[in-house]
Amino acid sequence: MSRVYNFGAGPAALPQTVIERARDELLEWRDARMSVMEMSHRGAHFGEIAKDAESRLRRLLSIPESYKVLFLQGGAQLQFSAVPLNLLRGKDRADYVDTGQWSSKAIAEARRYCEVNVCASAKDGGYFRIPAESLWEKDAKAAYLHYTPNETIGGVEFQHLPDSGPVPLVGDMSSNILSRPIPVDRFGLIYAGAQKNIGIAGLTVVIVREDLIGTAKETTPSMLDYKVQADAGSMANTAPTFAWYMAGLIFEWIDAQGGLAGMEKRNGVKAKTLYDAIDDSDFYSNPVDPTCRSRMNVPFTLASPELDGDFLKQARAAGLEGLKGHRSVGGMRASIYNAMPLEGVKALVAFMKDFEERRG
Amino acid sequence: MSRVYNFGAGPAALPQTVIERARDELLEWRDARMSVMEMSHRGAHFGEIAKDAESRLRRLLSIPESYKVLFLQGGAQLQFSAVPLNLLRGKDRADYVDTGQWSSKAIAEARRYCEVNVCASAKDGGYFRIPAESLWEKDAKAAYLHYTPNETIGGVEFQHLPDSGPVPLVGDMSSNILSRPIPVDRFGLIYAGAQKNIGIAGLTVVIVREDLIGTAKETTPSMLDYKVQADAGSMANTAPTFAWYMAGLIFEWIDAQGGLAGMEKRNGVKAKTLYDAIDDSDFYSNPVDPTCRSRMNVPFTLASPELDGDFLKQARAAGLEGLKGHRSVGGMRASIYNAMPLEGVKALVAFMKDFEERRG
Repeated sequence: MSRVYNFGAGPAALPQTVIERARDELLEWRDARMSVMEMSHRGAHFGEIAKDAESRLRRLLSIPESYKVLFLQGGAQLQFSAVPLNLLRGKDRADYVDTGQWSSKAIAEARRYCEVNVCASAKDGGYFRIPAESLWEKDAKAAYLHYTPNETIGGVEFQHLPDSGPVPLVGDMSSNILSRPIPVDRFGLIYAGAQKNIGIAGLTVVIVREDLIGTAKETTPSMLDYKVQADAGSMANTAPTFAWYMAGLIFEWIDAQGGLAGMEKRNGVKAKTLYDAIDDSDFYSNPVDPTCRSRMNVPFTLASPELDGDFLKQARAAGLEGLKGHRSVGGMRASIYNAMPLEGVKALVAFMKDFEERRG
Repeated sequence: MSRVYNFGAGPAALPQTVIERARDELLEWRDARMSVMEMSHRGAHFGEIAKDAESRLRRLLSIPESYKVLFLQGGAQLQFSAVPLNLLRGKDRADYVDTGQWSSKAIAEARRYCEVNVCASAKDGGYFRIPAESLWEKDAKAAYLHYTPNETIGGVEFQHLPDSGPVPLVGDMSSNILSRPIPVDRFGLIYAGAQKNIGIAGLTVVIVREDLIGTAKETTPSMLDYKVQADAGSMANTAPTFAWYMAGLIFEWIDAQGGLAGMEKRNGVKAKTLYDAIDDSDFYSNPVDPTCRSRMNVPFTLASPELDGDFLKQARAAGLEGLKGHRSVGGMRASIYNAMPLEGVKALVAFMKDFEERRG
């Protein structure tokens, strides 16, 4: 059997060549005579793997020296707590922009630690657009401004960088990190779960400006204290070694595709191909304002929800998996992260046209 | 090149057949037409993997229905915080037994959340024995009694179960879980990092009596709240899917070795082989009281520390890796977890005899 095109939202598709590489060296990594999975996180071999992955990520994103890069466990949702615990720095409030379900979850968690000023919200409009920044009610006394550059469920993505002035900007970049170049130096902190564009579930990358760490709240679990982890090179506890290794392979693969400029180009073509197919049809539709459609997660509905079951069944038979929309939204969702090739998107579009012709 | 015998303390050796199995199905798991690493944690395929792993673990350890089994991220050190955050249940104190470096770390972290009564400590004696339980100064008002059944660094292991009366017993079983049968029903909570006897780094298993959860401190990060994770089947956030899958393969392997009774027998023979070799020699020594020597981690010293470098170099050349003692203890340490075959221990003992003859 050949592999499917996996449009799942995460854990998501990986480049086949990366899985093959991991497979080929799974029993014995280079001359280590053991598996990466068996290596001490403090040994020379894993040290090389860890350092190499960090260097590649720093190069890909042009991360300044003054930023720490952490490879942690716990997922982005644990960062929903870790961010206020670490970044409030004696202040009692933070700004949050609400553009969808993931921002909402981040807000709910932050409220347990500080006063949250929701400086802009797209909730009333159904989360289909990003509120104009001129209307945001920012608080100059906020410890930081948190936003979600890409909403995995709603399929809404910022096409510009918010201006938070002197207030540190914090971005949950779980679902669009590494999809195109970003100016890291404009951020105070970026975090991202790995299971979409970085690698596999079980790793969370945190990129944080060094001057913001070191004043975590007293009640912060030590392992969530960025300063503790930064001082220990992300090894205050045993690091998620295999996931870290996989991230390194992915970074190498991105390099080979032309880096983030290459990714941006490729992702642009993929997204345009799919949105054009949706917009050219009266059968499919996407509810998101065209100015802020996500290049990573494309939700769409069929003319009638009664056709959803057939669509999914036939798509699966055609080797197209993971298309079911999030339970809260319904319809379909095609996640087309870095690892999804253009051929996969073309196969989906061809299937959609065929399905429409037969049913529409 | 053939694989080495890896005596590292963790991440540690895995059974070769388990790595080969993971390798063979890495690109496509059964009929899923995708890698385990790419599967949605909420999909049917991973659901099967997750459920199967939990069932196997429940059978291996005879875990009663009234206990929840959680597959989490963060490592045992994050549990040092999660345990008091979840189990204090309105109380302000807990009992801790201090038998080595890992208990000490657990104590230091717990002190940030409650009053810690160190009801027994082996610190003054250099952590070479476990204080007689008749002398423990337990506090009847403690929320729980925490101990470390096996100290990975000192090589000290409890050979009996402490009696905590009505106070819930909590064990950090990271380095000896699944090495022999244990009466789970005598515990309130057991936790263990996976990278020794369960699988790979990045997964932490928590087994907790259901009636103890649901009253976490207000400041507990939601992802660390056992109740939140239990209600969501450990999927309140994206689970560490690949590490969970690897754990399932290990549980299956343990089953095939005769379960925990088989493991106990095998581990007993391995430990006796190594301790006998140490005790029969004037060249090697182990400082731990014979009544509480660990069957998992065997620290030993050479007649002179000046020989350490040669020993390690020659051991490596003989295919024996990971023998360097913990930096705080010096000398050597052989970790002989479940996956270390008797042949590995025999190879080590043969090398030790040979080295002694040539040098001693």
